[in-house]
Amino acid sequence: MTSQRLAIGVDLGGTNARAAVVDASSGEIVASHKATLSERTPESVVSIIAEAVHQAAGSARLALPSVASVGVGVAAQCLGRTGVVLNAPNLGWRNVAFGELLAGKLGRPVRIANDLSAAAWGEHSFGAARGIEDAVLVFVGSGVGSGFILGGRLHSGASGVAAEFGHIKVRPQRPGTPPRRCGCGEMNCLEAYTSGMNVAARVREELQAGARTMVSELAGGDLARVSASLVDEAYRAGDAYARELWEEVAELLGVAIANLVTILNPARLILGGGVLLGASTLAALVREQMDAKISRSAVGALSVERAWLGDDAGVIGAALLDG
Amino acid sequence: MTSQRLAIGVDLGGTNARAAVVDASSGEIVASHKATLSERTPESVVSIIAEAVHQAAGSARLALPSVASVGVGVAAQCLGRTGVVLNAPNLGWRNVAFGELLAGKLGRPVRIANDLSAAAWGEHSFGAARGIEDAVLVFVGSGVGSGFILGGRLHSGASGVAAEFGHIKVRPQRPGTPPRRCGCGEMNCLEAYTSGMNVAARVREELQAGARTMVSELAGGDLARVSASLVDEAYRAGDAYARELWEEVAELLGVAIANLVTILNPARLILGGGVLLGASTLAALVREQMDAKISRSAVGALSVERAWLGDDAGVIGAALLDG
Repeated sequence: MTSQRLAIGVDLGGTNARAAVVDASSGEIVASHKATLSERTPESVVSIIAEAVHQAAGSARLALPSVASVGVGVAAQCLGRTGVVLNAPNLGWRNVAFGELLAGKLGRPVRIANDLSAAAWGEHSFGAARGIEDAVLVFVGSGVGSGFILGGRLHSGASGVAAEFGHIKVRPQRPGTPPRRCGCGEMNCLEAYTSGMNVAARVREELQAGARTMVSELAGGDLARVSASLVDEAYRAGDAYARELWEEVAELLGVAIANLVTILNPARLILGGGVLLGASTLAALVREQMDAKISRSAVGALSVERAWLGDDAGVIGAALLDG
Repeated sequence: MTSQRLAIGVDLGGTNARAAVVDASSGEIVASHKATLSERTPESVVSIIAEAVHQAAGSARLALPSVASVGVGVAAQCLGRTGVVLNAPNLGWRNVAFGELLAGKLGRPVRIANDLSAAAWGEHSFGAARGIEDAVLVFVGSGVGSGFILGGRLHSGASGVAAEFGHIKVRPQRPGTPPRRCGCGEMNCLEAYTSGMNVAARVREELQAGARTMVSELAGGDLARVSASLVDEAYRAGDAYARELWEEVAELLGVAIANLVTILNPARLILGGGVLLGASTLAALVREQMDAKISRSAVGALSVERAWLGDDAGVIGAALLDG
């Protein structure tokens, strides 16, 4: 028992926060506590997280003062070591000194990072990128993002917002596709065309504007049930609308991922997220585009894996951020 | 004199090789020797470089055996520590064990890198990125390329081909623009649409196909004189063809550079190369696109500079590759 070094990580999403005590030598989650964000003001969220941290630490019989720091992965643009959350659309936060607030509440130093940077660090520590110096993780789920392990280190960039892959600017293939505003406030981000939430929103808008697609029947006529996985189902059933949409989305995602690999030359690409892992037809189309567009010079070193740690990658990585 | 630590760097282009003795504590070039590549077989080039290294070392009264290693920046895709040049279109090389050949000839270990990675390392050591942990260098000249300093280290990637920015895949804005094959052999690389050589080749092709543009008169009717700077001149004189071409090229370059900044979050972007520094109107259009498309989260940390070390960046960086 004495050889165990325990660390605390938190995964802060838009609706839940999860605190976990992680064995830093094995990556095992020793105890964890999940709490719903009943309110989303920074003060409320800080209180909810602090309570979850105390619960998890209590279950693991870990005295909080014995922990060097607490790491938090936030579904947001985070200014690294300053602890400032620049923009968290799901929480409605802009420029919140979240790290400082939480550190004050916990009485321990707090280190924050984007949730996918934390997940990449988790996969590097104990998952699909273990022992690999250069690895890129790409998630396409309700949002789109990435995390970079470069030279064995988490690459956070000059102000901590590196790897904001969802916010690169793209131009859809079909001239008729209207420009879309992203949750970050900017126009034509990759995420605005390809994330699960945005795909669903776009299909709803187009259905309301008169588009004809099987997705409507698959959703039982209920717009709220429209989702990327129903588009995937419609595609497999031969729906023309779904085919056109998936071709556009797959080209955008496939080329963007290919260019990321060409530029960073990782040994491993880790794919994750509900859209890439759940919408199998889209995933295959993305892979086809990607394989065709990665520079031949970068493809030789590359292997592609699904994420190993699933939803645990974020808390594990967060716990080890300063490790 | 005894405090001077001298290192040897080589810059290998398509037509010349330059060897330099560099003071590793100041970045000063103590002696240098430039040689024309009269032949381009690997054996001939190795002999020419070895001779240039001996000449430069002799001028600096430096005994070659006292040097730990010799660094070479090559205008090519280089497989890092293996010393293999994967693809050097200007030399006509594919899969050449160049590092090994040169090491055999010199009797010293040889470290090779892409010329722009070497230049980035030079600018980081003694130029526009000195003291900056995260810096990106982008060159648009006869070719298009980049070099990355991330976390204070040169990022070479898993097999040494990271930062091959010229070989990301793009889709031009105008539907009428035909696909172009790049010097690397692949289709639709950024370089195929935006490098000085490729722009000149495209304008020549379009003139021969009947395009009407002032570039023709500016070149005195001599197709061989067509260049990016003449297109720039034609643009300033109100030429419609030049305006359309520059808009397309500027969008491709500006968005690609913006996305690079969004993804890597550098504190400094260093711009260089004959097209970006010489074609002032194009450079301004690229800058406009770039400024509009960088994610607001990444723009705060960024400053943009021209390269400081000019043509010396490559040899200086190469000399310090293992430093």
